[in-house]
Amino acid sequence: MKADFIGLDWGTTTFRAYLAAKDGSVIETRQSADGILAAAGRFEQAFDEQVGDWPSEVPVVASGMIGSRQGWIEAPYCPCPAGLSEIAGALASLTTKSGRRIVFVPGLSCSDANGVPDVIRGEETQVLGALANANGAYLLPGTHSKWLAVNGGRIDRFATYMTGEVYAALKAHTILGRLMREEGDDAEAFNAGVLRGAAAPELLLHTIFGTRTLGLFGTLAPEALPSYLSGLLIGSEIAAATRDFASKERVTILASASLAERYAKACAICGVTASVGPENAAVTGLARIARAAELLN
Amino acid sequence: MKADFIGLDWGTTTFRAYLAAKDGSVIETRQSADGILAAAGRFEQAFDEQVGDWPSEVPVVASGMIGSRQGWIEAPYCPCPAGLSEIAGALASLTTKSGRRIVFVPGLSCSDANGVPDVIRGEETQVLGALANANGAYLLPGTHSKWLAVNGGRIDRFATYMTGEVYAALKAHTILGRLMREEGDDAEAFNAGVLRGAAAPELLLHTIFGTRTLGLFGTLAPEALPSYLSGLLIGSEIAAATRDFASKERVTILASASLAERYAKACAICGVTASVGPENAAVTGLARIARAAELLN
Repeated sequence: MKADFIGLDWGTTTFRAYLAAKDGSVIETRQSADGILAAAGRFEQAFDEQVGDWPSEVPVVASGMIGSRQGWIEAPYCPCPAGLSEIAGALASLTTKSGRRIVFVPGLSCSDANGVPDVIRGEETQVLGALANANGAYLLPGTHSKWLAVNGGRIDRFATYMTGEVYAALKAHTILGRLMREEGDDAEAFNAGVLRGAAAPELLLHTIFGTRTLGLFGTLAPEALPSYLSGLLIGSEIAAATRDFASKERVTILASASLAERYAKACAICGVTASVGPENAAVTGLARIARAAELLN
Repeated sequence: MKADFIGLDWGTTTFRAYLAAKDGSVIETRQSADGILAAAGRFEQAFDEQVGDWPSEVPVVASGMIGSRQGWIEAPYCPCPAGLSEIAGALASLTTKSGRRIVFVPGLSCSDANGVPDVIRGEETQVLGALANANGAYLLPGTHSKWLAVNGGRIDRFATYMTGEVYAALKAHTILGRLMREEGDDAEAFNAGVLRGAAAPELLLHTIFGTRTLGLFGTLAPEALPSYLSGLLIGSEIAAATRDFASKERVTILASASLAERYAKACAICGVTASVGPENAAVTGLARIARAAELLN
């Protein structure tokens, strides 16, 4: 297979590179912990170390936080609604010291009815690469879960839910962590948490306290409490987001296999029909953007 | 004025003692940082150090975490609904080495429709001491805010909201704190946060992210962000709790003056009619319980 471009999915904590054909088929993948935090101030060196031996004549297209103000060069946010043409029309680029041109995909911004902004960077590329559903919701769970509403192949709007980061902060830095023991997943406790979280997302500041009282009263064992709290937060997120996006029918989850499975289970408990999208959506999206920008021959 | 009893409001981080008449009128107050955490293992010594010089012939009645499993002696939780008679009928007691009898007020427990328990300890005594409204909701804000539904002078049920502790964890241990500068209250940002939090408490995991984006886009200054986040959480709490308790008319707030004022403002923004109760509710409650238990002549 002929290598047509190098795609970079370069985020806060992880660097991922793909040597790929113009249809997004992957020839080789490399990954390292040289995210933009670790590689700050030496982006070109990090790039060369990882993929300096790959063909130098093919274009390089990068998405993720590498295109932010804290990254290599800023590709300003593109306002929603945005589809392939708006995104491909707003690329930033630079030429490295060794004379190589690198193109950066912009993140997206949107604003809710109250004028409060929200932002994504990298997720727009994954969604463009996974457009199994031209209409519906996309969910990219994680530290900051992103929900995107897609309409006619374009990203209409999106919302960030701080589910993963809130879970970590509650567990490590509040009274809720005191009774916990960490011993892997407890499916039953997770299910109970999801049900309760989804039944009353507006009561979240109250329902999380149940993680303590159920432990105090011995209803849940210490090793079940982390799963219960995780379920509460994920159930709240899914109930709120599907209500907000008016989409309980077509949710596509993009994530690593284990995280996608966790959210797929939670969606099923919440009565939300979800399917898991491809894991290589980023490189497919980078290929689509590169073709739309006429970077590939 | 004749001293009829010693009342102790002995919580996790604070020890408060009142030398008082049988109607709850306070003759003298003492306060120290010898809460049950600091005084663990030496409760009698801490008591003697603080109030050993007070009359030894009057009864001592204590409420708060001192009556918990981590305290001096456990006064088991009394189930809701509970009024003066149930609480006064469930006192625990011990005799100190020096021969003094100390009586402990039980905390309350309740269970929601899903069987998830909740607990309070100390707040029941304050509410019994502040029964300006024999019907309505009582709000005791703080690290763990407590909302109590009172009906005919009895505590029907209650719910804990982890508002204060979640605020502290989000500020110190998530990305939300990164852009913040701490410089006292910003009334306008607080108001905006309350409005947004109250408008959609179910979206809390999403709306808190606005604390970051409003800072990133320069809409809110770094020193306004703590007030905005505080407003978001308090607005969410008030909207959810008043909806859950079906009580937007008669909310009585019991707290220190500054915290009560903060919540009273937030209630007004949310369209909730709240009044601030007396600051000495604890000692009035202890006096009522002591009289009901026939400890006072």
